[in-house]
Amino acid sequence: MLSSTVSSCPNFLDALACQNKGRPPVWIMRQAGRYLPEYQAIRKSRSLEEMFRMPELIFEITKQPLDILGVDAAILFADILHVPLSLGLDVSFPGKGGPVISPTITCAGDLIQVCPRPVEEALGFVQEGIKLIKQEIKEPLIGFCGGPFTVMTYMTGKKIKKWLYSDPDGALELLQILTDQSIAYLKMQIDAGVDAIQIFDSWANLLSREEFSFFALPFLRQITQAVKEVPTIIFSRASSHFVSEIVSIKPSGISFDWTYSMEEMRRRVPPTIAVQGNLDPELLYAPIPVIEKETTKLLHSMEGDPGYIANLGHGVLPDIPVDHVKAFVNTVKNFSPRSSGGH
Amino acid sequence: MLSSTVSSCPNFLDALACQNKGRPPVWIMRQAGRYLPEYQAIRKSRSLEEMFRMPELIFEITKQPLDILGVDAAILFADILHVPLSLGLDVSFPGKGGPVISPTITCAGDLIQVCPRPVEEALGFVQEGIKLIKQEIKEPLIGFCGGPFTVMTYMTGKKIKKWLYSDPDGALELLQILTDQSIAYLKMQIDAGVDAIQIFDSWANLLSREEFSFFALPFLRQITQAVKEVPTIIFSRASSHFVSEIVSIKPSGISFDWTYSMEEMRRRVPPTIAVQGNLDPELLYAPIPVIEKETTKLLHSMEGDPGYIANLGHGVLPDIPVDHVKAFVNTVKNFSPRSSGGH
Repeated sequence: MLSSTVSSCPNFLDALACQNKGRPPVWIMRQAGRYLPEYQAIRKSRSLEEMFRMPELIFEITKQPLDILGVDAAILFADILHVPLSLGLDVSFPGKGGPVISPTITCAGDLIQVCPRPVEEALGFVQEGIKLIKQEIKEPLIGFCGGPFTVMTYMTGKKIKKWLYSDPDGALELLQILTDQSIAYLKMQIDAGVDAIQIFDSWANLLSREEFSFFALPFLRQITQAVKEVPTIIFSRASSHFVSEIVSIKPSGISFDWTYSMEEMRRRVPPTIAVQGNLDPELLYAPIPVIEKETTKLLHSMEGDPGYIANLGHGVLPDIPVDHVKAFVNTVKNFSPRSSGGH
Repeated sequence: MLSSTVSSCPNFLDALACQNKGRPPVWIMRQAGRYLPEYQAIRKSRSLEEMFRMPELIFEITKQPLDILGVDAAILFADILHVPLSLGLDVSFPGKGGPVISPTITCAGDLIQVCPRPVEEALGFVQEGIKLIKQEIKEPLIGFCGGPFTVMTYMTGKKIKKWLYSDPDGALELLQILTDQSIAYLKMQIDAGVDAIQIFDSWANLLSREEFSFFALPFLRQITQAVKEVPTIIFSRASSHFVSEIVSIKPSGISFDWTYSMEEMRRRVPPTIAVQGNLDPELLYAPIPVIEKETTKLLHSMEGDPGYIANLGHGVLPDIPVDHVKAFVNTVKNFSPRSSGGH
């Protein structure tokens, strides 16, 4: 009895099915990224375009956090702007200011620039990268795409609301194009072998609930309904505000930011939907004992929940020491639920 | 009976006391600002340092929206970083990237750089500006300061959480210095003649509820309790998440962002506390009929509330056409509550 909980094999997919009996699985948003010296080593000799578009590099970077941190799932290393790339737009990474899309699409008149290409043709490197990864790793692989609203936010150069309010019909037209292309992109990822999907609607926190229900939710619903082959997790930087809306589209899991406690969020999500999160990413700046203490507090608060996946409330920041990230992961991996100790 | 509601003089201070019987008063966060061509005209020949620090310019800029928009209250034109300036730090406005504080204060060791000066000496220009304004305008004048957490966020160059988590005691020390200086600054504003105070804790949306209760709320409480001479409104970009916390410190009013409807927020605020907000600032990009429709919807939802003040959910954006801002203000000023029409 004593060892059963502690030693059972943790399983990300079990937790996503709300059937995990062991300690919670753990992975980290942006775990394949800049905080890793091994990632920086590649970055030194390669452009981001190469890193995102060469299957061997996609494989190598995706695998790094499995080797270095020992997380329970891998997430595909890919750019959130691959979908605009597949619409014939130019996506480049000139420097520190983040990606640049050209041309920007800021009104219905610009839609003439948007020419969807077959995803296998435009994004075949993702397909090949996934196949390489799946040949080499035993952990589940999470595929992903951006939420249509979030991708549109990037495409407009962040001037999205001007468009939403001055011409909602035109905006809905682009959102539908992005949704259709995202579904095709995700189906390609699934065919290539991903085991789960996470949709990052990171910028949905720009929206009120009414706007979210109009400009984001219907498209998340379409994607969730179209992609039934593998479980789907929805993340938005404002999941905590839009809980009931996101629950209504019945994803397999919801990933929460750190605004509210996981316990509070769990009470608002039915037990058939997994919950993921939500340590404040900046808490990883704290000294290791504080990280261990806060992580343990989080784990105890979710103890015995068969549908809980440990993660941060948003992506890991680039200047967090790797040891601090490891402290979070190891605290989850070494977690002994109180109940198993019998006292 | 018919005319009593419509014709009664609107009064910002009455609404803040939850005793307004007419149509709601209206003002706009950042109403003295870049969207006004008259402001831009001054900006062309003056530096921001001059605009913030010359009493005649403070007066002129503060008064502009009263003349141009006809709003029901003025808000002091001042920089949210006047408090760090009074702590002996250098605050400059080199270009488009926003203000620069030098040196940045990122750990307890940096506190040696922080030397509070008497506010009358360091910020006497604000005092003089307020006196000029009060001589010339009949509308109530709102003074303001930043919330200590928000001001500290700027002072750290946005690296605040690293400090909060690695050395909370040191962080609390700076927050207390900022609080003491903010209280002195507000008392000076009140002595000079402001009729109400708004505290802008704009960056509190970086915080979880637990963090907010630890790093922001205690200092907002101290300020609210120290400044009893005039009513105090609290705004944070996340007021909607921290409603019960903010209610607990009993400000005169709470200004809400647009995450939730005003109706929802009103239900969570006792009738003795005024509520202010919350049209999405980006809705002002929409065509004028849409602005009128959405504003009317908001007003109807708050109809008959004696403690409601119309405003945006955050500051007006610099590229909004003035006519669109006027459409919002005029819709409030021409609002006829349904009940007064009798059908």
